[in-house]
Amino acid sequence: MVEVFERSVVEGRRFDVVGIGNAIVDVITHADDGFLAENGLAKGAMTLIDAEQAEHLYGLMGAGIESSGGSAANTIAGLAALGGRGAFVGKVRNDQLGGIFRHDIGAMGVAFDSAAATEGPPTARCLVFVTPDAQRTMQTFLGVSAGLGPDDIDEEVIAQGAVTYLEGYLWDPPPAKAAFQKAARLAHKHGNMVALTLSDPFCVDRHRLDFLDLVEGHVDVLFANEAEISALYQTDDFDTALQQVAGHCQVAALTRSEKGAVIISGEEVHVIDAVPVAEVVDTTGAGDLFAAGFLFGLTQGRNLHDCGRLGAVCAAEVISHYGARPETDLTKLVAPVLG
Amino acid sequence: MVEVFERSVVEGRRFDVVGIGNAIVDVITHADDGFLAENGLAKGAMTLIDAEQAEHLYGLMGAGIESSGGSAANTIAGLAALGGRGAFVGKVRNDQLGGIFRHDIGAMGVAFDSAAATEGPPTARCLVFVTPDAQRTMQTFLGVSAGLGPDDIDEEVIAQGAVTYLEGYLWDPPPAKAAFQKAARLAHKHGNMVALTLSDPFCVDRHRLDFLDLVEGHVDVLFANEAEISALYQTDDFDTALQQVAGHCQVAALTRSEKGAVIISGEEVHVIDAVPVAEVVDTTGAGDLFAAGFLFGLTQGRNLHDCGRLGAVCAAEVISHYGARPETDLTKLVAPVLG
Repeated sequence: MVEVFERSVVEGRRFDVVGIGNAIVDVITHADDGFLAENGLAKGAMTLIDAEQAEHLYGLMGAGIESSGGSAANTIAGLAALGGRGAFVGKVRNDQLGGIFRHDIGAMGVAFDSAAATEGPPTARCLVFVTPDAQRTMQTFLGVSAGLGPDDIDEEVIAQGAVTYLEGYLWDPPPAKAAFQKAARLAHKHGNMVALTLSDPFCVDRHRLDFLDLVEGHVDVLFANEAEISALYQTDDFDTALQQVAGHCQVAALTRSEKGAVIISGEEVHVIDAVPVAEVVDTTGAGDLFAAGFLFGLTQGRNLHDCGRLGAVCAAEVISHYGARPETDLTKLVAPVLG
Repeated sequence: MVEVFERSVVEGRRFDVVGIGNAIVDVITHADDGFLAENGLAKGAMTLIDAEQAEHLYGLMGAGIESSGGSAANTIAGLAALGGRGAFVGKVRNDQLGGIFRHDIGAMGVAFDSAAATEGPPTARCLVFVTPDAQRTMQTFLGVSAGLGPDDIDEEVIAQGAVTYLEGYLWDPPPAKAAFQKAARLAHKHGNMVALTLSDPFCVDRHRLDFLDLVEGHVDVLFANEAEISALYQTDDFDTALQQVAGHCQVAALTRSEKGAVIISGEEVHVIDAVPVAEVVDTTGAGDLFAAGFLFGLTQGRNLHDCGRLGAVCAAEVISHYGARPETDLTKLVAPVLG
């Protein structure tokens, strides 16, 4: 296997992974395809909306359940649930949703030391519409999270993370993009790795040239699903995208829903089967939890095959219920993989 | 069957049922019996806690999901999900949890016109600990809901409800008790029925004499589970309690979890089987949804046997997932009963 990084790097750090992303509370409801069409919602995608649009859409949506979310935050929560040492950097307001976000990530065992903003917009929320096919359509009001900026990146924290994990969604608001760049630079300065998830195909479309540059020169571990990697290389053929990404970053983990995942690192390629699920209820967080399992394996010194299997087990858990954070004991679920 | 009330009463009203109760957002988490014991939580019961206790306990509890709750509110939400015409009276603050409560009950089709308080304590929350046996243990911080008082009871609304449905929990805070008494008096003044749920065995213990008086002279339809009716008559034998309650109110609907329910009205007694559930996940809201189905049947002019079966179907739905509000289409589930 490829030596992804020295065990001594992980052992010398306080955190296995530091995640940086939007701090979001999800508001989850059922909807049918007709509702999505009537309201012009792009099925399966994440769309940014403003406060007014959020209020309007919330008025139209069904009764919901609230659950802490945020892509990188879900990943770090999953990593902690596996026993990994995680920290999260993100911005909430000192409001009730901010309190819920802070409680939930802390209760998972994640260090979350970012101070709550005492003024400005409220804590971010994502209106999640789950259709009968278990697909999720997300409309996100970033609120105060859009203000995440370079000043929120603490060099001490990044220095202490063997991996700094960044969500592509951060590329949308300019201050968050600057925070992203600062964090990636600091991670490498301290001999740590940088991991990135491409987040969403439309997000990739918005920032393709930047993301190509990131993958080429700034990212050690890349996570993407089939739609995202295809958007990055502007192809509709998975294998074409796979051939393109090979060699552009140290490790790429490409997820394909029920088709499983492909892990590629230099000459090494692993094709990992999806873990069967009795009933797929809500696919929200599938990619985030795959990344959680994968990064847990990586920082535990596991080979890439096992990292992929750990990701598949964690993704299977999160799609079997509503919400993007694990509900069952992940350590038990991954025990057969860890041996 | 007993003519519970004239169809013309229902037809002449804007609402089938007006529910009055605490407006609460539930915060649901898993816990084991050890956690309950360590923190002195009375398993299966609802315990009132203050702001400081709530903050302390929230700090100890695991990551949660938030879902609108409140006993009578759950019942009215269920009634509306069945196609009934429901109104709810309760008190929230103009905060984020209050906004969630208002959205969710409105999205179910319930009229909720109570203005939000603009000062004072925050919206009520209930910390719900679900143990592996699917039993729920509730710790409630009433917040602004404790301030629900007689001024919140609008005679016009009560006049328009064929049934006024009250939760026993209201007997705890003195102003809510006064609101309860006012609402019951107004309902009868306008020729409507009064229904009561005893809510909780400890609540019954706290207010036994008052509740006996209510059942004797002020309540037309009584809902209680086995523990509550046994607490009311200070017996540990269900049949003894059953014999006591007979004749004290027009209709009593007594629920017994997996043993089903017994409906008694004068000489008429129905023994209703529970509806089997593939997996009991969380019993929160079981009684509330039984009442929803029962009251829907009653206001639709159904006989007491069918009312009981409707209650059993709705209770079975809500215990098969987390949260105290229905998640699947109740109208489809009850269609076989309605014929």
